[in-house]
Amino acid sequence: MKIALTIAGSDSGGGAGIQADLKTFHQFGVFGTTVIVAITAQNTRGVTDVHVVPVSTVEAQMAALAADLPPHAVKSGMLATAELVEAVARGIRRYGFPNYVLDPVMVATSGDRLLSRDAEKSVARLLVPLATVVTPNLDEAAILAEEEVKTVAQMERAGRALVKLGAKAALVKGGHLEGDTIADVLVTEEGVKRFTHPRIDTTSVHGTGCTLSSAIAAGLALGRSLERSVSDALAFVHRAIATAPGLGSGHGPVNHFAEVGSAAEVIAG
Amino acid sequence: MKIALTIAGSDSGGGAGIQADLKTFHQFGVFGTTVIVAITAQNTRGVTDVHVVPVSTVEAQMAALAADLPPHAVKSGMLATAELVEAVARGIRRYGFPNYVLDPVMVATSGDRLLSRDAEKSVARLLVPLATVVTPNLDEAAILAEEEVKTVAQMERAGRALVKLGAKAALVKGGHLEGDTIADVLVTEEGVKRFTHPRIDTTSVHGTGCTLSSAIAAGLALGRSLERSVSDALAFVHRAIATAPGLGSGHGPVNHFAEVGSAAEVIAG
Repeated sequence: MKIALTIAGSDSGGGAGIQADLKTFHQFGVFGTTVIVAITAQNTRGVTDVHVVPVSTVEAQMAALAADLPPHAVKSGMLATAELVEAVARGIRRYGFPNYVLDPVMVATSGDRLLSRDAEKSVARLLVPLATVVTPNLDEAAILAEEEVKTVAQMERAGRALVKLGAKAALVKGGHLEGDTIADVLVTEEGVKRFTHPRIDTTSVHGTGCTLSSAIAAGLALGRSLERSVSDALAFVHRAIATAPGLGSGHGPVNHFAEVGSAAEVIAG
Repeated sequence: MKIALTIAGSDSGGGAGIQADLKTFHQFGVFGTTVIVAITAQNTRGVTDVHVVPVSTVEAQMAALAADLPPHAVKSGMLATAELVEAVARGIRRYGFPNYVLDPVMVATSGDRLLSRDAEKSVARLLVPLATVVTPNLDEAAILAEEEVKTVAQMERAGRALVKLGAKAALVKGGHLEGDTIADVLVTEEGVKRFTHPRIDTTSVHGTGCTLSSAIAAGLALGRSLERSVSDALAFVHRAIATAPGLGSGHGPVNHFAEVGSAAEVIAG
């Protein structure tokens, strides 16, 4: 059985964070492990409390897994502080964790910045060079690449900038583009690939970024190529949004019971 | 879609705690939410660090879920301190959470006591009366009922004592009995039912208690009777032990991908 590790915060509401990651790993048939960096009290309407876990406990969790349950793939999500970003980078390097999917969570759907400028710089400097793939949305791509990202052409340019920063690949997510079609752009050293699919009109988008990056990590843990892992993950998230269970009165969770399988019918590669 | 809530600690190794609970809920087709009370760094060989979450963050998590994602069933596991036991009891009462499965985690497989005597007394006084079912092992039944529990007859007597303390039912788990057959005893106001199954010779038993109580909660969340939920959960855990993936070098996790379904073939009710 393959092991995938999530390094992220906890969402009490179960739709995002390590909860979304564990559900996604399980749906893909992968054994999930966790390094929890923060506890949030939240539901589909918002976050009411955040408790950041001490760096020493974060380091102890990584050490415990490296010693006995080493992961076949890793993803990281919201990392809360510059100190935690540094600790996670140190751990990934020290233990040589493979297949690292970096979801550089920095900007909430509301537009609010979630990290300090120091922490943002540490993500770019310390984590991006370790990443097998980094998965920013438009705002996060703009922060990391330090340039405007509002069109598909700019997404490709930002993706290339992230590869220059040391990531093996960048998947720039176009969910916040205007228009009826969403384009996601995968940039590697070999070239650029666009994935397009119709936009779904819904408020059930809580945890989509978490779910996408953990689905990519699950694919990599299973030994699949990056391109196939990305394509399958995009298709899974698309289905998960389309069949969202309608829980909560705000931005509801997606359906982590959605079918896992070929992307052909929903994503045009 | 039904919601089940786990109130427990986090096991970085993914085999026990809220990780085992979320995997079990998912396998049963139920949406999992969490109130995390402690973060442990652990693997299949042991626990290397424990960080207890502030009571205010535990209360905030319960409040966030009560307001927007109220559970159809709840389970609690390791609660770490008397203060946390009190906070959890207050929350369950205040919000009227239904179908409460109390796994009174107090004694490790090693025999070590995990809670202070104060916290043990609070579990008996504050949580047992709220429980739809309480699921002690032999040692925990002895502590809660304040009498020796080493035989099936004593398990029945302890179960009746727990029902007198206010639990609607008690499932006293006989995994630590001697002999080749394991008997689990379900005591309700209506009477006593024994479930027996052959012992499996294995070290892959990490998280069995967590998995059992979350499987019972999943059944209750789905609207099933207590007796069916217990019977299905025992069968699920039996299969999960029998097909354990063999991860880690110590007491490995059970298989949370085990089949969910009728108990008939493995458990004699």
